[in-house]
Amino acid sequence: MPDTLSDRLRAYAEVAGQLDVDAVALVPGPNFTRALGQSFMSHERPFVLVIPADKPPAALLPNLELGSWQATGFDGAVFDWRDQTGYDAAFAELLSHLEITSLAVEGQVMRVFVHHALKAAQPDLRIIDAEREISALRMIKTPQDVTALRKAVQISERALTRTLKTIKLGQSEKEIEQTLVRMIFEEGADGLAFTPIVAAGDNSARPHAHARHDYKVKAGDALLFDFGAQADGFCADITRTVFLDHVSDEGRDVYDTVLRANLAGLAVTRAGVTAHDIDDTVTGVLEASPYADRIRTKTGHGLGREVHEAPYIVRGNQMPLPAGTVYTNEPGLYELGSFGVRIEDDVLVTEDGYETLTQFPKELMVISC
Amino acid sequence: MPDTLSDRLRAYAEVAGQLDVDAVALVPGPNFTRALGQSFMSHERPFVLVIPADKPPAALLPNLELGSWQATGFDGAVFDWRDQTGYDAAFAELLSHLEITSLAVEGQVMRVFVHHALKAAQPDLRIIDAEREISALRMIKTPQDVTALRKAVQISERALTRTLKTIKLGQSEKEIEQTLVRMIFEEGADGLAFTPIVAAGDNSARPHAHARHDYKVKAGDALLFDFGAQADGFCADITRTVFLDHVSDEGRDVYDTVLRANLAGLAVTRAGVTAHDIDDTVTGVLEASPYADRIRTKTGHGLGREVHEAPYIVRGNQMPLPAGTVYTNEPGLYELGSFGVRIEDDVLVTEDGYETLTQFPKELMVISC
Repeated sequence: MPDTLSDRLRAYAEVAGQLDVDAVALVPGPNFTRALGQSFMSHERPFVLVIPADKPPAALLPNLELGSWQATGFDGAVFDWRDQTGYDAAFAELLSHLEITSLAVEGQVMRVFVHHALKAAQPDLRIIDAEREISALRMIKTPQDVTALRKAVQISERALTRTLKTIKLGQSEKEIEQTLVRMIFEEGADGLAFTPIVAAGDNSARPHAHARHDYKVKAGDALLFDFGAQADGFCADITRTVFLDHVSDEGRDVYDTVLRANLAGLAVTRAGVTAHDIDDTVTGVLEASPYADRIRTKTGHGLGREVHEAPYIVRGNQMPLPAGTVYTNEPGLYELGSFGVRIEDDVLVTEDGYETLTQFPKELMVISC
Repeated sequence: MPDTLSDRLRAYAEVAGQLDVDAVALVPGPNFTRALGQSFMSHERPFVLVIPADKPPAALLPNLELGSWQATGFDGAVFDWRDQTGYDAAFAELLSHLEITSLAVEGQVMRVFVHHALKAAQPDLRIIDAEREISALRMIKTPQDVTALRKAVQISERALTRTLKTIKLGQSEKEIEQTLVRMIFEEGADGLAFTPIVAAGDNSARPHAHARHDYKVKAGDALLFDFGAQADGFCADITRTVFLDHVSDEGRDVYDTVLRANLAGLAVTRAGVTAHDIDDTVTGVLEASPYADRIRTKTGHGLGREVHEAPYIVRGNQMPLPAGTVYTNEPGLYELGSFGVRIEDDVLVTEDGYETLTQFPKELMVISC
C-alpha cells in the first residue's frame, strides 16, 4: 500500500480514469479502510468518499464522525450532516460541488439507500458497479498485509489445536463452537472473521452450516471446522475436517479425494496462473472421482480485509493472479443427509510458486475422544 | 413473531399490499433471518427471497445453500445458481416466473450489485426502498425476543463488571478492550454485537472511536465503554463512562448533565410516545446546559437482531412507539480534543412506562486503579 493518504486516493482516481467515469465512490468497508487507514461504521447513516479522476476528493459524512475523520488527514471538501436534519441537503451539496455525470461504486458494499440518495440528488447521474476494478487495488498484499494475515492464521491454528484436545463424544456442536471462540480470543484475536462453522454428521454436508445446540457429536462423525480470527484488520479463513473415534472407508476415500484436489490446486499455483486454471484443476480432480455429484462450490476466493474478496477462484475467471495475491484453496464434497469434507488453506501466490499461510496438518485425523 | 413460516411470509405479503407494490424482496440480514427462522451468509453470492402480495413466494439462491434452505420448510419456487455458471440466468428465470412490475426492497440491507442484477433481468422493474415498512415488522419484540435481549445485556454487564476490576493506569485502550472481549465470551456470548469502543481521554470525544494500541490510560481520564454481546441472535448495546483515579469539576458536571438527559428520556417513555418526543426531551436537557455545542448525535435507535434498527429516536420522527419496542437511550456530550461522556440504556417500552434491560449502575464512578 502506498504510504500517504494522497497516494492512496490517487490510485482510486486512476481507477476512475481507466473506467472512463468521472469519479469513484467508496463507502465504509474494506476499500474505505484501506484508503483512509482507519475504519468507520455506517449502519443507518450514509457516509461516502468521492474521488474524481481529475479533481480533489470530497466526502459526505455524519457530523458525529468529524472527530475521527479529521484524524485521517483528509483535506478535501467535507459535507457533514446531522441526525436531526437528515442527509438530503448534504447529498445535493456534494453533487453540486463535484459536477460529475458518472460514478463508479462498490456494488458489493454500497447499499441501495445510498444509491437512491445519490440518484435523488442528481437523477441523471450514471452509477456503474465497479466492484471488481475498485477492489482490485486490495488484491496484491503488501508485506505488512501478509504479516497481519499470518498473525490471524496462527491465532486460528493455535485455537484449533487447543479445541481439538477438549472434544468429547456427546458434546453439542454449539459447545464445541463456544470453546473454539473462547480460545480464538485467548490466543489474541481482535475479532472473528465470521461466525465459525462447527458442523458434525449430516450438518457437515451444508457448506454454510450453523452449529446446533441439539446435536451431540458421536463416534464416526465427520466434524468440520471453518473459521478464522481477525487480527490487525485482516481475516484468516481455515477449514479442517476430522473424524471422531473412527472413520468409514467411504469417509477415508472422500477425504483423500478432497486432499488430492487441494494439493493439485497448490501444485499449479504461481504468479500468472489464472483463477480459472486453479478451479479447473481442483474441480477436475473432484469431477474425476466417484463423488462428482457432491461438488457444491467453487475452489475459493481472495482473502484479506474481507473474508471473501477478489479474486474469485472459479472457472471462467481468466484473471491471472499476480504475486502477492492471497486466496483460499477449499475444495469440498458434500452428500446431503450424510456428511461433508472440506479442506481449506490460505495461499500466498509468489513469483515461483506459493506459500501456504495455513500450516495446520492436512493428513486424515481421527480424534480419540 | 407468528409461529409458522407461512404466517411470517404472509406478514411481508401484507406489507407489499399496503405499499401498493407487487412484492417485497428480502436478502440475508435481520428480516431474512426473522422470516425464515435461520440466518444465511451472502458475501459475493446473491440470495433473494421474493414475497408477492397475492402469489406464492419464490427464492433465488446459491446452489451450495440448498441443504440449509430445505431445512427452513420453504415450499415456494426455488431458482438456484452455481458458482461455475453465474446468476444472470437465475435472475431472469425468477422475474419471468414472478410477473411483477414493482418491488419493495430493504434499502439498508440490499447491496447495489443485487439491485443491478434485478434491473438487468427486467429493466422496467420499479424498485422502491421500503426499509422502514419492511423492518417495522421487527419493531415489536416478542417475549422470546426480550428474553434473548435480556440475556445479551446480562452477559455484557457481567463482562463490564469484571473488566473494571482489572484496569490499571498505564494500560492501553487496546489491552482493556481485549480483556473486555475475552470476558464477553467467557460470560457466554455467541458473538459481539459490534466491535467494542473502549476510548479514554480525547478519544472518548469521538462517538465511534477505535481502541488505540499506543494510548495508555492515565489518572483523570474519562474512560468510555460502548459494547454489547450477541446472544440467541439478538444484540445488546450499552455504554458507561467512568473516570480513572479522580474526576475534574467539569467532568462531574458534564456527567451529571448527560445522566439527567438520560433520566428525562426514561421519564417520558411509555407506549404511544413518539420518537420525536423522546429525542426532544433528551436533547432539550443537553441544549439547556452550558454544553449545548457538544451535542453530536440523536438520542438513540431501535435494538434487536441488529444493533441499529428502527425506530430511530430523532426529532422529526413522529412514529409513536408501541409497547414491545426496545430502543437505546444514549445521550452524550463530546468536546473534540478533550473528552466525552455517554450513558446508554437499552429500554423496553411497556404499556404504562418502561423497563431498562440494562441494570448497570449509572451513578458517577471513579475507579481506583
